[in-house]
Amino acid sequence: MRIDILSLFPEMFGGVFGASITKRAIEKNILDIAITNPRDFAFNKHNQVDDTPYGGGAGMVMKPEPIFRAIKSVKEKTQIENSRVVIMCPTGKTFNQQKAIELAKYDQLIFICGHYEGYDNRIVQNLADEIISIGDYVLTGGELACMVVVDAVSRMLPGVLGSGESAPTDSFYNGILEYPQYTKPREYHGLKVPEVLLSGDHAKIAKWRRQEALRTTFNNRPDLLKTADLSKEDKIFLASLNDEK
Amino acid sequence: MRIDILSLFPEMFGGVFGASITKRAIEKNILDIAITNPRDFAFNKHNQVDDTPYGGGAGMVMKPEPIFRAIKSVKEKTQIENSRVVIMCPTGKTFNQQKAIELAKYDQLIFICGHYEGYDNRIVQNLADEIISIGDYVLTGGELACMVVVDAVSRMLPGVLGSGESAPTDSFYNGILEYPQYTKPREYHGLKVPEVLLSGDHAKIAKWRRQEALRTTFNNRPDLLKTADLSKEDKIFLASLNDEK
Repeated sequence: MRIDILSLFPEMFGGVFGASITKRAIEKNILDIAITNPRDFAFNKHNQVDDTPYGGGAGMVMKPEPIFRAIKSVKEKTQIENSRVVIMCPTGKTFNQQKAIELAKYDQLIFICGHYEGYDNRIVQNLADEIISIGDYVLTGGELACMVVVDAVSRMLPGVLGSGESAPTDSFYNGILEYPQYTKPREYHGLKVPEVLLSGDHAKIAKWRRQEALRTTFNNRPDLLKTADLSKEDKIFLASLNDEK
Repeated sequence: MRIDILSLFPEMFGGVFGASITKRAIEKNILDIAITNPRDFAFNKHNQVDDTPYGGGAGMVMKPEPIFRAIKSVKEKTQIENSRVVIMCPTGKTFNQQKAIELAKYDQLIFICGHYEGYDNRIVQNLADEIISIGDYVLTGGELACMVVVDAVSRMLPGVLGSGESAPTDSFYNGILEYPQYTKPREYHGLKVPEVLLSGDHAKIAKWRRQEALRTTFNNRPDLLKTADLSKEDKIFLASLNDEK
């Protein structure tokens, strides 16, 4: 997959993309990332990329020309057909694991990262195939949001994750949160690993894990239980948690 | 505010924290960020920070000792009372703007960033005051999630945003998404700025912006409308959108 990123702050990406899963995907030649600065496509006196909003209001708005030109340049240079333009914007639809899986199917993703008070709406309406928000909070720019999407999508590209990192057991795949994990030592400062995990009884361990996963979901994200795939046993356990409460 | 981050990949943060709002908050002496590597607190042969999970399963789990020791060291060194330990974890409660405002009130935030398949659960249960997820997607580690929270919180610290960047008009403050913005030129490749924004009629502009904000919310995030603060006029407009549909 080829990823092109339009950003006024290209220096923000090096640390994140130089580490961890993205680095590995690049080294394996599964992923290729290029960053384009829309400022290089601002042809007026001061390479101006933003201006005051029509109709009044605080802050600056990203001008259409540099973004339109930068997208045109990227598309002409790369000539990739199965391509998707994603604009990072708090007014977009909320990103989730399903969307990560969907985006991983394209041969090219082109991200537009905004800054200042927002984009001229002609950018949003005419260039973007997807408008994506990573959550209900305000960030300074689209760069961090873009890195989050790139990380989540990279993990879904075939061959990126090693066999020891089986994606399907990750949170949000099965509609409920993950079960708690424990590793050595068996006891630390009086805090012990639950007996059942040391029992070697696989059926008992599986049952305990399922119940603890349900408990975490019940406590932290009860909204997920509405759409989760639950067995009759799961439902009985959840009812008992409800009674305790 | 002082922010301490525990991470096995300290090199990931430089690019992001060296740019944009965080950089400005640091330069203004409003924010101080330090990164601690738990590997420096792993005292066994190979500075081992992870191990296989008890009870079986794929991947590696972060061991308790290095994290417990690193937190102790940070707390002893900084001695800040009004402090909060935040663990970044997909099983946590979902981060939002309200939580950003809450976290901005502490004098110190200590973030624990996980990697591998997760943390030994004794870390989560005994060290964390908050378990936070930034959204329903799987990331390689807690670093990016931590950067997102730090960015959102930094913006809420008094004195960080300039007067031209009035936070209260940002998305998610008023329960609905932002209205579309436009800037120069008036026409670009045949795409025009809406007439009303050029009219100079402030009441008309305010009404148009409110309605377009409602329209975006209706299209992209109808869930927000359930809890938004809506006037009688808003409700009539939303009903008309519903009829169109």
